[in-house]
Amino acid sequence: MNDEILSTGNKVLKRFFNLDTQSYQDGALSARVKEMLGLVASLVLRCDDCIRYHLGKCHALGVTREEIDEILAIGNLVGGSICIPHTRRAVEYWVALEEYEQKKDEN
Amino acid sequence: MNDEILSTGNKVLKRFFNLDTQSYQDGALSARVKEMLGLVASLVLRCDDCIRYHLGKCHALGVTREEIDEILAIGNLVGGSICIPHTRRAVEYWVALEEYEQKKDEN
Amino acid sequence: MNDEILSTGNKVLKRFFNLDTQSYQDGALSARVKEMLGLVASLVLRCDDCIRYHLGKCHALGVTREEIDEILAIGNLVGGSICIPHTRRAVEYWVALEEYEQKKDEN
Amino acid sequence: MNDEILSTGNKVLKRFFNLDTQSYQDGALSARVKEMLGLVASLVLRCDDCIRYHLGKCHALGVTREEIDEILAIGNLVGGSICIPHTRRAVEYWVALEEYEQKKDEN
Amino acid sequence: MNDEILSTGNKVLKRFFNLDTQSYQDGALSARVKEMLGLVASLVLRCDDCIRYHLGKCHALGVTREEIDEILAIGNLVGGSICIPHTRRAVEYWVALEEYEQKKDEN
Amino acid sequence: MNDEILSTGNKVLKRFFNLDTQSYQDGALSARVKEMLGLVASLVLRCDDCIRYHLGKCHALGVTREEIDEILAIGNLVGGSICIPHTRRAVEYWVALEEYEQKKDEN
Repeated sequence: MNDEILSTGNKVLKRFFNLDTQSYQDGALSARVKEMLGLVASLVLRCDDCIRYHLGKCHALGVTREEIDEILAIGNLVGGSICIPHTRRAVEYWVALEEYEQKKDEN
Repeated sequence: MNDEILSTGNKVLKRFFNLDTQSYQDGALSARVKEMLGLVASLVLRCDDCIRYHLGKCHALGVTREEIDEILAIGNLVGGSICIPHTRRAVEYWVALEEYEQKKDEN
Repeated sequence: MNDEILSTGNKVLKRFFNLDTQSYQDGALSARVKEMLGLVASLVLRCDDCIRYHLGKCHALGVTREEIDEILAIGNLVGGSICIPHTRRAVEYWVALEEYEQKKDEN
Repeated sequence: MNDEILSTGNKVLKRFFNLDTQSYQDGALSARVKEMLGLVASLVLRCDDCIRYHLGKCHALGVTREEIDEILAIGNLVGGSICIPHTRRAVEYWVALEEYEQKKDEN
Repeated sequence: MNDEILSTGNKVLKRFFNLDTQSYQDGALSARVKEMLGLVASLVLRCDDCIRYHLGKCHALGVTREEIDEILAIGNLVGGSICIPHTRRAVEYWVALEEYEQKKDEN
Repeated sequence: MNDEILSTGNKVLKRFFNLDTQSYQDGALSARVKEMLGLVASLVLRCDDCIRYHLGKCHALGVTREEIDEILAIGNLVGGSICIPHTRRAVEYWVALEEYEQKKDEN
């Protein structure tokens, strides 16, 4: 999805995208906690694409629905009811991720 | 600090403040992780008072400087260089918290 | 629409949604004025879903097109031309609400 | 306070400042309601100077403490706990406005 | 597109839209530089409609892809990775503008 | 000013600060235009520290008061009247920069 952008030859953009990826790798904090941080930051800044990206990573790293709900709760409290439409879409996406996983397990 | 506001008799505001406090209590996620979430959300929304509040809580719950730096790094990547002045003040506050703690230990 | 979220068992989220609803009920200020406040807040924070929600409430409570235009004007002045696309969609939605009402009256 | 800016000769800025003033004048909505709209918009966008400006106008137009509290409640619900520090300062400023008024009345 | 809004008779809105247009005209700074300013402001405030509008203007005024990439780079650095989805859509739109131009030239 | 932060050993933060600096260097666009872009982005995101930083750079690169006013005008139109307090402080800072320069020239 970022191929078009990365094809541009602009070094600052390329390094920025790389750095963004690096910041979520295991370190003093686990990648799992870092993806949670990315999720709540994306929610309070209200970016659906970013929310979905971090939900996908959280799901892959074994974050549970109860944990997701607590992250969404903090995001809503900090960021306000303006986050509710994004929260609704986040939950719908999470449910879809879980259903997809369940179907794969059944096959 | 919230006494003046809480003295107003407005029930919605009171319940909102209570709810905000509840959202950071131990649950599926630990209070420690939740304070980290509050910190990164405050950083990307650029609220110095909120950042200091969560830094204080993080410090009390044993979050290390290395962990704080990784949270600040994610906040800066997600929220951009507009967060740098807040990051600088956050680090200064954290250093002050550590120095205060160290002096207490020496006495 | 919030059924999926409300089905989660997360108490903080549930209470937050309830509190959000409570804050728009008649009090020292009428529900009518409060929905106007919700509308302008949603416009400057640029949330189309929230704008539509409050436009629907305003319409049901008898707010006129002239009043809506003055709210949109304040929102644009405070929030800037970045609000123009949301303003355009808000006006389109309001016109649709009025046409729907008119058709109902004709039948 | 805007004298320095207005001295610049930039017509767009001058017209913008004039337009901003015009948008709060009596129309389909009263100046009183419009200042409330300006207040809640300033709160959710978290601008202390703007909040104080509209609190001053609201006070001059006879808005009561109970009404202010309901506006602040809506602002906090829509904009989130990130608005709490601004809410605290808003209440402190309002209390100061009321005390100043009371002293004038006593003299 | 703004016809519906402009049909409303609200003078503040009309003047605001006019003023917005005026602010991008040649002056001490060229319209070309001003459209770049409008583009980066739209990117950090994350408004896709506004970004596309200014990309169209930039394209018509001869801004090159290399210049666009540097504007996008600054926008991403200042505004953070939350701007990445908007950056991707901006690049896609720019590529479409260039392809459209090329086809016109070939005919 | 960033010494404390840079002393931390966090590589992502260090690289991010370096990248931020790189993005304003001469390229397809001049450093002068890039600082203007940084200024308008800082204004619409309402960060006084960032605004002052870019005003200082603009001043050093020979941007004139008329050009600054046009940048501020675009920032106010895009970002709204919520930017007015920041605009006032920006103008005050610019006047101070010019007075300081004039005094140096007189000595």
